[in-house]
Amino acid sequence: QSLLLLPTMKALLLLLVVVAIEAKRRRFPHPSSYYASTSNSEITYSWTEYWFNTKLDNFDFTNVDTFNIRYLVNMDSYKDGGPIFFYTGNEGVIEEFANATGLMWDLAPNFNAAVILAEHRYYGKSQPFGPVDGDQSYASAEKLAYLSSEQALADYAALLGWLKSTEVDKKRPVTFSTETKVIAFGGSYGGMLSAWFRMKYPHVVDGAYASSAPVLYFNNAPGVDWGGFDKITTDTFRNSGCDNEVIAKSWDSIKKFGTTDEGRDFLNKVFNVDMNKSPVTSPADADALNDYVREGIEYMAMTDYSYPTDFLKPMPASPVKYACSKYLPAGSGLTDDKKIAEAMAGIASVYFNYNDPTYKVCFKDGCGDAGTDALGSPLGWPWQECTELPMTMCARGDKNDFFWNECKTDPITLMKNDCIDIFKDQKWKVEMLGVNAVATEYGYSWNGVTNVILTNGELDPWRAGGVQYSDQSRRLFATQIINSAHHFDLRQPNTCDPSNLPWIRYQAVKAMWCFIDSGKCTDDLDIVDNKPSTMPSDTTNCKDIIGGYPWAQSSTQAIFSFTTLLVVIASIFRM
Amino acid sequence: QSLLLLPTMKALLLLLVVVAIEAKRRRFPHPSSYYASTSNSEITYSWTEYWFNTKLDNFDFTNVDTFNIRYLVNMDSYKDGGPIFFYTGNEGVIEEFANATGLMWDLAPNFNAAVILAEHRYYGKSQPFGPVDGDQSYASAEKLAYLSSEQALADYAALLGWLKSTEVDKKRPVTFSTETKVIAFGGSYGGMLSAWFRMKYPHVVDGAYASSAPVLYFNNAPGVDWGGFDKITTDTFRNSGCDNEVIAKSWDSIKKFGTTDEGRDFLNKVFNVDMNKSPVTSPADADALNDYVREGIEYMAMTDYSYPTDFLKPMPASPVKYACSKYLPAGSGLTDDKKIAEAMAGIASVYFNYNDPTYKVCFKDGCGDAGTDALGSPLGWPWQECTELPMTMCARGDKNDFFWNECKTDPITLMKNDCIDIFKDQKWKVEMLGVNAVATEYGYSWNGVTNVILTNGELDPWRAGGVQYSDQSRRLFATQIINSAHHFDLRQPNTCDPSNLPWIRYQAVKAMWCFIDSGKCTDDLDIVDNKPSTMPSDTTNCKDIIGGYPWAQSSTQAIFSFTTLLVVIASIFRM
Repeated sequence: QSLLLLPTMKALLLLLVVVAIEAKRRRFPHPSSYYASTSNSEITYSWTEYWFNTKLDNFDFTNVDTFNIRYLVNMDSYKDGGPIFFYTGNEGVIEEFANATGLMWDLAPNFNAAVILAEHRYYGKSQPFGPVDGDQSYASAEKLAYLSSEQALADYAALLGWLKSTEVDKKRPVTFSTETKVIAFGGSYGGMLSAWFRMKYPHVVDGAYASSAPVLYFNNAPGVDWGGFDKITTDTFRNSGCDNEVIAKSWDSIKKFGTTDEGRDFLNKVFNVDMNKSPVTSPADADALNDYVREGIEYMAMTDYSYPTDFLKPMPASPVKYACSKYLPAGSGLTDDKKIAEAMAGIASVYFNYNDPTYKVCFKDGCGDAGTDALGSPLGWPWQECTELPMTMCARGDKNDFFWNECKTDPITLMKNDCIDIFKDQKWKVEMLGVNAVATEYGYSWNGVTNVILTNGELDPWRAGGVQYSDQSRRLFATQIINSAHHFDLRQPNTCDPSNLPWIRYQAVKAMWCFIDSGKCTDDLDIVDNKPSTMPSDTTNCKDIIGGYPWAQSSTQAIFSFTTLLVVIASIFRM
Repeated sequence: QSLLLLPTMKALLLLLVVVAIEAKRRRFPHPSSYYASTSNSEITYSWTEYWFNTKLDNFDFTNVDTFNIRYLVNMDSYKDGGPIFFYTGNEGVIEEFANATGLMWDLAPNFNAAVILAEHRYYGKSQPFGPVDGDQSYASAEKLAYLSSEQALADYAALLGWLKSTEVDKKRPVTFSTETKVIAFGGSYGGMLSAWFRMKYPHVVDGAYASSAPVLYFNNAPGVDWGGFDKITTDTFRNSGCDNEVIAKSWDSIKKFGTTDEGRDFLNKVFNVDMNKSPVTSPADADALNDYVREGIEYMAMTDYSYPTDFLKPMPASPVKYACSKYLPAGSGLTDDKKIAEAMAGIASVYFNYNDPTYKVCFKDGCGDAGTDALGSPLGWPWQECTELPMTMCARGDKNDFFWNECKTDPITLMKNDCIDIFKDQKWKVEMLGVNAVATEYGYSWNGVTNVILTNGELDPWRAGGVQYSDQSRRLFATQIINSAHHFDLRQPNTCDPSNLPWIRYQAVKAMWCFIDSGKCTDDLDIVDNKPSTMPSDTTNCKDIIGGYPWAQSSTQAIFSFTTLLVVIASIFRM
């Protein structure tokens, strides 16, 4: 009887192999490649660097090992009674997030706030196993056992507790009163952390401002589409004037070139490929080139800011519109494979190497990941995805998604195949994938949480995993911001911001006052994007706005107070 | 120069030795010795026992080991749309808590609720290293690494998530809709867990009913007195008519007898000491006898219920009043050491061996701890105190405290000495004491928490560490209940309850409706002990009240609604 099963088993095994190969190409898009600096910026933020000795394992009291995480402090604006603005560091070097979160610095004087940013364990210089050679921390699953969001949040809670401690400690650079209020700030994974910090440690943080936090992009979250990320990418390109039908066809064009020597020569030339490091020499290389273009498109939607930035290379204002109008405007009518490939090379160049014709394109293993390398610790985010934070995303490749169909295999299976592959040396096992870890630890319901601002940018693919509903009575403010990209609202205000962004920030400031001081809180508060959004007409001379609060905004909502009510009643009865 | 320091160092070392000896006697009072069963009770609660496979380490994804925890389920009252009443098991065998939490069972039909109780890891049968021989789990610090409140809460969250999972699993005995509401119940440490469960997992539990939860009895909690526990014990005895001045002197009387052969013979006789297991043969034994009496006094205050119970032995209604009036009424005028020792033997007997003159008193190592043995896993609670949950308590021995002064050494130092001593075999180290662990993980501020009932009994020493303030707007209801003891309100209602207890429970039911169904919630809700508390006049025939809700209670508070306001305004203007 068991012999009869053999042919079926063989077929199954073959199928598995096919799936494994197909599924291998999935990348691990960092939520946090948003540290593009603003062009023409004249601001430098300053801080003093300190180290905090934290428990290696915050949840095991028998493990008495400790190590140091880094944190940055600026007390320039702080006055007694002021709050701490605390950035919950995410998957990268903390300085990058410090520079990308200008709003926090800009508002500190208005709040008399201290600014503190903590580096996430296992990133930047905060390595538990040897600060000099950070790679040691990534050598094995055993050493990676302490990398998780829970551990990071426990570090931050311990750090803040220590900074407010009444016990004398000469190593403490500054001591805050135990009454000091704390507002957590964070964008992207840092936004997840700041929102979760308020959820899990309400005694430590009084409120959180989480920008672009895809806290719902996990297994079985209700209402969240696996394909949402790439659907929004597709929308952003369509709405920016691209010929999406041609983009949808382009992958096949490029694959076709990959099948012949002549075609591969063409690809190497039109993409200006680095012939030493990553020449296209096989059909698989053409697939890798498609992955590269896709990454450029996705990250371009994330970083679709309304003013020029300096990212890998300079990037124009509203890069998606720029790329679409220059290389592939809607109704292009392109059908020729060569023209299509040229257009795609052009689009990708806006993100990877705008204005630099000498740039050599490199996309194979060993090139590094252009989009995320500057964050450091390149294995960190993939490890977190392969354990606690597996994000359930894939491209659907249907009429709403110009990429190819990945979702025929479910994202968790895709993830498993990738993780085995990436973490061979570390001896990753399938059982380490916490398929329901986020559902259990943080959940998908925000019904029990108070004092959190959750903003998402309309243009940003990550909003697919963002919270969509608000509840004023609990001061849970979830807002989608028109014309905004990833982490945009937390950046330094700029003369070229879309016109609705100052209004969002103005309302967020009011919310933050409510988080920390009932005397400065208006009860009818909400954060809504209900003012016109106009884009800057001229982006040649965009400038930072420093100390600009309230940015010419004022609350226009009628305040329907009890006094008003009495006046209304009195007038009804003609008194 | 270093030689000169020697005498000082010797003096210091001597001092340390003295402190160590002095500090050695501190016990680890379990918060949870309240499972006294009600006399004359005819109720038996029924359930089906199941096992849930949980991660050994919920916070380390590289550790793929699992083990089983036990949980009890009763679906008799459950109807679609009803909530889960979930008991967050504490430091003992789960059946004990099931039987001591009658209110949960009694209200289940009113709510169409499922009743589920989960056993805490490392207690009862929920042992990670061998269910047969539970002791293996306590063999070493390495094996005890996974015993903590955070791990237990993560188990409970995982269990509830799994019971609501949409993924097919044949091992799941019953599947709830993902929308199912959950109310956590718990008393004592179980109350801490249920309150913390709501704090940390607001997406898993919609509200919590925490009775007698000393969540603030930890290092540096503002406003909490180390000596509060024994001060309240002292108050309860004074208010019950005891001659507290004599009790305060009694320790010296007993110590004095310990110094002579004749005196020790007297003690052995008057206390009816077990001469095989724990004869008084030294001054130190007399100290141990004092500890034994003290334990009886403290636990008697905890279990000072208004009807007879069966605890170790039967215990009369209001045992403290009984003991005081029978053995040592106020104004006794006793000065004779023998009479005083006799009175103390009598008082202790009410708790340990009421109505059983054949009972032999046993109080030395090897006798077990009469107050807590039935809970099982006797090392569990001490281990939790020696790691994550060091309770900062000691007797002050001043005019408000009839015990002796322990607080001359701070409780953390006392704790360290004890832990080294108790956990020699397990290789406990001072660094394992999480002095600020509760401050960091849970904190002492409940300002960010919603939907929690926190009740404390006036007579119960543990209320010294309870939350004292309410906030209706967040549905945080902290109430001190007159004439109530430990975990009293969560017990099965009884004809001999103090008259204010049904009113408290009635309001708690209203609060629980608010936690799970806004349609059944009245906004002006509060839980206050503002009705007369009269004690039962006759306790000879106390009976359980089954299904008695609403216990002849009704809301008497005026509802000051908007309509009322208009009527008032109109009448002012004489319309």
